[in-house]
Amino acid sequence: MSASAAKVSRKENSNHDGADETSEKEQQEAIEHIDEVQNEIDRLNEQASEEILKVEQKYNKLRQPFFQKRSELIAKIPNFWVTTFVNHPQVSALLGEEDEEALHYLSRVEVTEFEDIKSGYRIDFYFDENPYFENKALSKEFNVNEGGDPVSKSTEIKWKAGKDLTKRTGQTPNKSGKKRQHEEPESFFTWFTDHSDAGADELGEVIKDDIWPNPLQYYLVILLRQIKPAENGDFIKVVIKASQCLP
Amino acid sequence: MSASAAKVSRKENSNHDGADETSEKEQQEAIEHIDEVQNEIDRLNEQASEEILKVEQKYNKLRQPFFQKRSELIAKIPNFWVTTFVNHPQVSALLGEEDEEALHYLSRVEVTEFEDIKSGYRIDFYFDENPYFENKALSKEFNVNEGGDPVSKSTEIKWKAGKDLTKRTGQTPNKSGKKRQHEEPESFFTWFTDHSDAGADELGEVIKDDIWPNPLQYYLVILLRQIKPAENGDFIKVVIKASQCLP
Repeated sequence: MSASAAKVSRKENSNHDGADETSEKEQQEAIEHIDEVQNEIDRLNEQASEEILKVEQKYNKLRQPFFQKRSELIAKIPNFWVTTFVNHPQVSALLGEEDEEALHYLSRVEVTEFEDIKSGYRIDFYFDENPYFENKALSKEFNVNEGGDPVSKSTEIKWKAGKDLTKRTGQTPNKSGKKRQHEEPESFFTWFTDHSDAGADELGEVIKDDIWPNPLQYYLVILLRQIKPAENGDFIKVVIKASQCLP
Repeated sequence: MSASAAKVSRKENSNHDGADETSEKEQQEAIEHIDEVQNEIDRLNEQASEEILKVEQKYNKLRQPFFQKRSELIAKIPNFWVTTFVNHPQVSALLGEEDEEALHYLSRVEVTEFEDIKSGYRIDFYFDENPYFENKALSKEFNVNEGGDPVSKSTEIKWKAGKDLTKRTGQTPNKSGKKRQHEEPESFFTWFTDHSDAGADELGEVIKDDIWPNPLQYYLVILLRQIKPAENGDFIKVVIKASQCLP
């Protein structure tokens, strides 16, 4: 069917655009004008994106000294990061017992958003000397390649002999004896070798967008418990740090 | 277990924070300082959000005359909106045959983002006189209520006798005779009565974020076909408007 034949049949099927019917030529002109107007809208969208990026860059700079100060303070608190991760529901689900043991040596975490590329960021994990691997730092970096596709890359972990946590099975043994429905990642550290979903890396985004903006709230998971009403009718509130209740 | 007992046991389990061990009191002070620094970071985050909102508001204003002009041009093209919706993969999946017939009377669509509330928007559909309902306009509006929860509300559709498309079954009859696995919405127009997912209304967000920014690209679903190489080695390209190929 030719384009014009199709168009005619479409019009015949329609029963309400008779009176103010516009000619084929006028319609074609209207489409061309819409295209021009659309180019103006697209140009404004690009300008808006650029301005928003500049605001974000400005505030990234302004926040930097506070992040620096926060890192120095966090360094004074033993086990700050492992406690924060254990208290975070999504991250804790990824942690085997030995992962948690290894993360006791995690002394510093840094999230850096790149200035030049909108979607790029890097997460650096600094470790004390530990029995698991030789690296002092492990990083994972998210970026876009030349073709515009999201990619990620990581530090190669130099495991000490017999300590490769990504090669252990049964870190969290399945006591029921049933076969697992689908293979779960065995270790938090498999994240460093998994580059399958660089555009929407779940752990990366949780750390960047949820933990990094305010890690203290996870370190201090506060349970607010209402105890029996006091004499005057008020409630007595008891605040317990959940992180300190864990065995 | 008391908080302090728990803390001691945590430290005993940990085997690397002995030398530079900070006292309980110093740790408590560090936590309080982190909290202060965090307040500064939160303040900067709020300022950044406000500045970004202002940029968005500025560009909403700048785009407005172009959207206005675009609407005027679209009005010259019969069946622009129904063709656009039919060509959009997600919207088209919601359209029964009679929905499509009714949408032939859809003459204008407008998306308005509210200035005062970040997540609020309204979609207005203007209809010509039609055999289905009395309304000249149908709107659906998304907002947050006083408690901060997302809510939506819509125009009540005044269906003409026997024309309520949301009460028809078998618009798209199931020829296989099998019972449906789960009830699908029967009509595009059920969207106007469905307020179950106001925070992430799929159709609302597709129209606002995907169609409205550039409806022409869906009206003109362009198939670019490479035909046999021409004499000089270039490819001859043939452009066909898919919207005009539909029967």
